[in-house]
Amino acid sequence: MSKITVGIVDTTFARVDMGRMAINEIENTTSNVNLIRYTVPGMKDLPVACKILFDQHECEMCLALGMPGPDDKDKVCAHEASQGIIMCQLMTGKHIIECFVHEDEAKTPDELIKVCDNRAREHAQNVLKLLFEKDWLNKNAGMGLRQGYPDVGPIKS
Amino acid sequence: MSKITVGIVDTTFARVDMGRMAINEIENTTSNVNLIRYTVPGMKDLPVACKILFDQHECEMCLALGMPGPDDKDKVCAHEASQGIIMCQLMTGKHIIECFVHEDEAKTPDELIKVCDNRAREHAQNVLKLLFEKDWLNKNAGMGLRQGYPDVGPIKS
Amino acid sequence: MSKITVGIVDTTFARVDMGRMAINEIENTTSNVNLIRYTVPGMKDLPVACKILFDQHECEMCLALGMPGPDDKDKVCAHEASQGIIMCQLMTGKHIIECFVHEDEAKTPDELIKVCDNRAREHAQNVLKLLFEKDWLNKNAGMGLRQGYPDVGPIKS
Amino acid sequence: MSKITVGIVDTTFARVDMGRMAINEIENTTSNVNLIRYTVPGMKDLPVACKILFDQHECEMCLALGMPGPDDKDKVCAHEASQGIIMCQLMTGKHIIECFVHEDEAKTPDELIKVCDNRAREHAQNVLKLLFEKDWLNKNAGMGLRQGYPDVGPIKS
Amino acid sequence: MSKITVGIVDTTFARVDMGRMAINEIENTTSNVNLIRYTVPGMKDLPVACKILFDQHECEMCLALGMPGPDDKDKVCAHEASQGIIMCQLMTGKHIIECFVHEDEAKTPDELIKVCDNRAREHAQNVLKLLFEKDWLNKNAGMGLRQGYPDVGPIKS
Repeated sequence: MSKITVGIVDTTFARVDMGRMAINEIENTTSNVNLIRYTVPGMKDLPVACKILFDQHECEMCLALGMPGPDDKDKVCAHEASQGIIMCQLMTGKHIIECFVHEDEAKTPDELIKVCDNRAREHAQNVLKLLFEKDWLNKNAGMGLRQGYPDVGPIKS
Repeated sequence: MSKITVGIVDTTFARVDMGRMAINEIENTTSNVNLIRYTVPGMKDLPVACKILFDQHECEMCLALGMPGPDDKDKVCAHEASQGIIMCQLMTGKHIIECFVHEDEAKTPDELIKVCDNRAREHAQNVLKLLFEKDWLNKNAGMGLRQGYPDVGPIKS
Repeated sequence: MSKITVGIVDTTFARVDMGRMAINEIENTTSNVNLIRYTVPGMKDLPVACKILFDQHECEMCLALGMPGPDDKDKVCAHEASQGIIMCQLMTGKHIIECFVHEDEAKTPDELIKVCDNRAREHAQNVLKLLFEKDWLNKNAGMGLRQGYPDVGPIKS
Repeated sequence: MSKITVGIVDTTFARVDMGRMAINEIENTTSNVNLIRYTVPGMKDLPVACKILFDQHECEMCLALGMPGPDDKDKVCAHEASQGIIMCQLMTGKHIIECFVHEDEAKTPDELIKVCDNRAREHAQNVLKLLFEKDWLNKNAGMGLRQGYPDVGPIKS
Repeated sequence: MSKITVGIVDTTFARVDMGRMAINEIENTTSNVNLIRYTVPGMKDLPVACKILFDQHECEMCLALGMPGPDDKDKVCAHEASQGIIMCQLMTGKHIIECFVHEDEAKTPDELIKVCDNRAREHAQNVLKLLFEKDWLNKNAGMGLRQGYPDVGPIKS
């Protein structure tokens, strides 16, 4: 089977190297995927980086990793990046799994790094599920899955 | 008559399996519809999932189900997903009925599940009305219909 | 002269049948217009309904009527619908006159119905002006015209 | 030299006839421009009006004039119009200079009219600079130019 | 080697001539780049200016510089410009590095000018990295790089 190409798109702005974590997770899980890493300065550069990977590098899917800062300005930035990421998907008909960790999500540096590691790995697994195991996703519909923190699970009556 | 294909698009993030409820409602109502279920990780993955179903799986309409969490960040997420869902419709010329239940809409788990069940089923019916009974919608214009809660009805002078 | 086709797009969510008011106004004013009514469940379904009318039903213009509820969530909904309506116009090069009445605009049911009636009729007239009397609009540039409430008129020095 | 066509797009909603002011300014400055005025009901109708002028009336540039009211709802309206105006420019590759005066910008009617007159005329000059004198703009980069109020000038160290 | 063309797009609204700073930085670093400067009135004119440079002037990348004022209205403006800049990138498949300095970012004129100078130069370097040294960016993924202020560096466990 010819390998499928996946883009790992991340930023120099982020304060944790989530791209490396995601790559490690994918390489530990499968040898059917060819990875291209594309690092850009900031979150708002992510959408076009994915577009370039889809159009010029034959990527089938992208994982876009970013780390918005704690200020209001950073939240607006993340919102703009997300809108662009959605638009890019609609223009190409291909999935981009967005993996953002907000710098103010955790209380300590260690906890933040752990959230980054978990989320990057779990979203890397989501990429693989979308590529190779859509049935797994169907079976987990409505199951309250989370990335970075423990799953909250389904609402119990 | 050849069957019409409808996409049921939902998430593993949601805490109630609304996709199953919608599918059940449609199957109980008609045998003229062929259903494809496509489950993605989160709400922001819904727009491209619909795009893929329209472009590659001959869907005529989609029902997009999601459950935004209670935080501000989740509300922004839902907003971005909604914008993408509208854009997807404009690009394809096909309807996507959006069925979102906010996790903080109800006071108890039982009530939340009930809202989910009602809304999923009522929006599934909206899909069928748009496909097979547009006259019914015309007749109910301005009637204050709601999904998930009782209809509020028209304003009375 | 062959008739021009205009789409009247409205919702079952609205609590006043503004579509009927607009249709009545147009039919009382001219016989040169052929009307197609397309009722959808909610405001966010309006943009694609207009797109379908432009692309598949030879509409030259649309009037999109909606009634956002009083909650913050409803305001976001209206914003998303408006963005989609603008995008639809840009994609097709055709006007959509948006006629939204917010449920919390008026203090009493009677006042709300009156605002709906006035606004639907005045925006129906705007559709006709754009189709047949662009000069009238030019002459009223900067005149502080309003729909639903009395005109505020131009600022007086 | 054949004349260049410029669109003057404004609204009946505005309470000051800024379109007339802009036309007067352009006609007083040059005879190389052919003007087309296109008046629409409200701000949200401006983007498609520009699209129509670009696509069907051979306009090379547009000046879009609007006057948002003082309410929150009006600010959202202006935001939506601005987004559409930017999108229209991207779709056509042509400039639209946006000239909005918020009704609550000035304290007295006279001051408001003066702001409108100044801004309409200064943005009309910006249209002419973009068409005929790009060097002038280059030379004034970073100079803190304003329209409607006096220039604030560059930051002094 | 034939030179690569880069667009420097800035505004007369800005109160510091960041375009000049960026041009100086690029010219001091390389002779492989051909620069085109395009100055527009305000931030919202930046997206289409980039579009024109990509489509009509063979630019491979743009640097878009702006300086939002201190008011809420200015923040909305910057948001709209950013959305347009992202959309332009998606339509063309080319990077635009956005370099905005908010007028209220610094406490004194001297500090503001210094932030502008640093940010313009560091983002000019980002343009060059994306053109000629993508490896450098990959190596700095997750390193907490900043422009205008000192790098914050990676989170330490």
